[in-house]
Amino acid sequence: MSTIDVNVDAGESYGRWTLGDDEALFALGLVTSVNVACGYHAGDPATMRRTVRAARQRGVAIGAHPSYPDLMGFGRRQLAASPEEIGDLVTYQLGALAGFCAAEQTVVQHVKPHGALYAHAAHVNAAGDALARAAQAIDDRLVIIAPAGPIAEELHARTGATVAHEAYVDLDLGDDGVVIVEARPRQRDPQEIAERALQAARGILTTVSGQVINTRVDTICIHGDAPNVVANVEAIRDRFAQEGIEPRPLADVLA
Amino acid sequence: MSTIDVNVDAGESYGRWTLGDDEALFALGLVTSVNVACGYHAGDPATMRRTVRAARQRGVAIGAHPSYPDLMGFGRRQLAASPEEIGDLVTYQLGALAGFCAAEQTVVQHVKPHGALYAHAAHVNAAGDALARAAQAIDDRLVIIAPAGPIAEELHARTGATVAHEAYVDLDLGDDGVVIVEARPRQRDPQEIAERALQAARGILTTVSGQVINTRVDTICIHGDAPNVVANVEAIRDRFAQEGIEPRPLADVLA
Amino acid sequence: MSTIDVNVDAGESYGRWTLGDDEALFALGLVTSVNVACGYHAGDPATMRRTVRAARQRGVAIGAHPSYPDLMGFGRRQLAASPEEIGDLVTYQLGALAGFCAAEQTVVQHVKPHGALYAHAAHVNAAGDALARAAQAIDDRLVIIAPAGPIAEELHARTGATVAHEAYVDLDLGDDGVVIVEARPRQRDPQEIAERALQAARGILTTVSGQVINTRVDTICIHGDAPNVVANVEAIRDRFAQEGIEPRPLADVLA
Amino acid sequence: MSTIDVNVDAGESYGRWTLGDDEALFALGLVTSVNVACGYHAGDPATMRRTVRAARQRGVAIGAHPSYPDLMGFGRRQLAASPEEIGDLVTYQLGALAGFCAAEQTVVQHVKPHGALYAHAAHVNAAGDALARAAQAIDDRLVIIAPAGPIAEELHARTGATVAHEAYVDLDLGDDGVVIVEARPRQRDPQEIAERALQAARGILTTVSGQVINTRVDTICIHGDAPNVVANVEAIRDRFAQEGIEPRPLADVLA
Repeated sequence: MSTIDVNVDAGESYGRWTLGDDEALFALGLVTSVNVACGYHAGDPATMRRTVRAARQRGVAIGAHPSYPDLMGFGRRQLAASPEEIGDLVTYQLGALAGFCAAEQTVVQHVKPHGALYAHAAHVNAAGDALARAAQAIDDRLVIIAPAGPIAEELHARTGATVAHEAYVDLDLGDDGVVIVEARPRQRDPQEIAERALQAARGILTTVSGQVINTRVDTICIHGDAPNVVANVEAIRDRFAQEGIEPRPLADVLA
Repeated sequence: MSTIDVNVDAGESYGRWTLGDDEALFALGLVTSVNVACGYHAGDPATMRRTVRAARQRGVAIGAHPSYPDLMGFGRRQLAASPEEIGDLVTYQLGALAGFCAAEQTVVQHVKPHGALYAHAAHVNAAGDALARAAQAIDDRLVIIAPAGPIAEELHARTGATVAHEAYVDLDLGDDGVVIVEARPRQRDPQEIAERALQAARGILTTVSGQVINTRVDTICIHGDAPNVVANVEAIRDRFAQEGIEPRPLADVLA
Repeated sequence: MSTIDVNVDAGESYGRWTLGDDEALFALGLVTSVNVACGYHAGDPATMRRTVRAARQRGVAIGAHPSYPDLMGFGRRQLAASPEEIGDLVTYQLGALAGFCAAEQTVVQHVKPHGALYAHAAHVNAAGDALARAAQAIDDRLVIIAPAGPIAEELHARTGATVAHEAYVDLDLGDDGVVIVEARPRQRDPQEIAERALQAARGILTTVSGQVINTRVDTICIHGDAPNVVANVEAIRDRFAQEGIEPRPLADVLA
Repeated sequence: MSTIDVNVDAGESYGRWTLGDDEALFALGLVTSVNVACGYHAGDPATMRRTVRAARQRGVAIGAHPSYPDLMGFGRRQLAASPEEIGDLVTYQLGALAGFCAAEQTVVQHVKPHGALYAHAAHVNAAGDALARAAQAIDDRLVIIAPAGPIAEELHARTGATVAHEAYVDLDLGDDGVVIVEARPRQRDPQEIAERALQAARGILTTVSGQVINTRVDTICIHGDAPNVVANVEAIRDRFAQEGIEPRPLADVLA
């Protein structure tokens, strides 16, 4: 039986505002790793605690989801921060999440940059390196999530960090190997998403232009704020069960 | 020879704005513990890293200085946060600082709430307890700094936390045992401050109304943004040297 | 036929987060005045523009809804700001809203403080006065909304400002004449709310303890984020129609 | 006698942090227009009121200095905001400043974008247009400040806005006609700055590479946070007096 990690963003509420229903999502039993917002694009301290607690109770592994400081833009706007500034903001947010994990008797498994920082870290070596090194300086067992293929490979080669290869299954893949983010996720056919998840789990990705890429995939990402997320998750879960693919946290997949 | 800890607030710059000259202050050789701003009243990530690094290089022990979220008011305005909210904001800020400490190969020694949160935690048991418990949940060796006397004693009795008894020497002491904060510290006579420091080190405090209190004092606080801070520090340092009082980090004083 | 104003809070989304459905609410045809969030508790610039535009298109009169600076707490936590600070933050937020109104060829009709600032301005004369005077200094025709009864009357007497007397119909009234705010509005019976609205329109209020107060009421407030807001609004609208009470913007009611 | 406007940034303090000494700068008698920070990169409400009041008392004309929302980066980092977002953030900040001006019985004369927004509006037509149109929608007499030469000319041609041509005299000019911003202004020779100011007033600019440009110049900018600002201002003031160049507010220069 082969294994794959399934990661989702969570803890993206803020104060009075609710986004997604993390606990319902965890309860569907597919998600194995969660990227927790750390206050810069979403995630006030109360939300962080609640999210860490819910993930721990469900056995979902926890990761930091650091962002540029941009609540108003939800971290989706590129900000011209220097590599040094990126390192510092990752240290800050990762440290904050580690605080909640320690308080809730669990640990941080991974770091996945959010939104514009994800894209920037993928495209600009100095930015990706600053992020990976900030994580390593806190705990060198932390896994960094990056786009599957050369980007993830080279980040590992340059920094020595453990880098997980990631594919998106509910968003399109650009020909540059980086996911094409949508301002608000649009509705897609759950069966189509399940098919993409299955292909991804087998190391096969297809870009928007129809290019087929064979590559290592350690984790797939699904979006908790997609309009039909429950149907998507159930479709993937069932397809994985049929095809003998077992969802496992990143640390197990990489072990 | 008796010992006492000398703590100062530091890392209170933010982005383009500079407040105090932490490195110059550390270089005077009196300060043994530093309260590092954690982003809520001051202290952007770059400032936090710089402050942690400078403290470690000078052998100054590091503490978190969490605040209400109020950059505009510098954390000096009381905010009606619930005990649960206080616990969460302490976890967040303490975790963030611990991240920088880990990255710089050092550790957090203590937690001292800032400004309005300091006063609130001193006056309201549920708030003080929430703060102490948030720190304990991360690391039960963390020392909490609280006003010397019954407030510190009772906080220890209620929570089991290690609580350091603190006196201020460049601000007046209210008859309620809590320091009277000034919006911007005014200039005072360095010899008068040195005399207060000496008395404090001997466990003798005098309130604004002239009331004399005999109490345990583990640490004295001086303000790095006072107009004549260098003269103040030198006066205390010299008086301590004459009187055989040795400044030592909190952890040593309490050991 | 008698008239009354019906005000609602709106524009309380922020960036990626949506709260309430303002346009659907306006379309129900009961609301005559809207309190627009100005960025301190909710309401990013894009949301402010959208809200002003929607209100103008529906003929709903526009007011500023200034708050303490507290996105994380949605402006519902008391912050110990001085009267001078309150005046300044009202000027800032009111000015910002007036900018959007000018850009959309409309004007600001009124100012209603939000959340904790509403309660504080009602209870502390210096705070209420600072708020009213900040509004008057920009435009002395601006109407201030305050709790119906002595609070509104005395604010008018002290400052000379035009003060509208307000009653809440989907929240309980404390015996101090100030509404009891709920963290998240709970569901209530629409017919009961409609009955309270009718009584309010006739100048009759009942406090939580059953005390009946006869007082002038110029405007009633309903909550757009109540779980069954559509049913509430329809019930009030129909009851008003049956009883010959015509909803009109504040400026008309007070004319 | 020829005239020229001299503009400075001001009101860039924030809460506890002070930057520059605006009143001392105004008192030197050279500055005729001031760009007031509006809360997004600096300038809390109390600072805005104080700055507007000081400028009005000194007869200095007031302008808005809107920025990307980036307190931590002081508005100096490019943020990928859309033209629509730029229009909205200009409306917000300009409105807020207009509120303080109305409260202090004065008006807004001009809009000059700050830091990274200044450069972006100069380089990207859609951004410059969004900014100019946001200002025009509030008051079509507002003057927009842009780099002297084709950038200013074309902005005027595209939008119909009144655009002032600006030259910097204490920073270098790139060959693209846009000033080269320094993180912290370095010390320069006051006589050299005075000579550049004189040449600029005569419509002669020199780029870093030594290229000489003849162009219309309506206003020169000097930096209040330069290390030797007083010497710079005195040198320019004296040179202007010797050469018969009279500093006048932008509105007069353009009349």
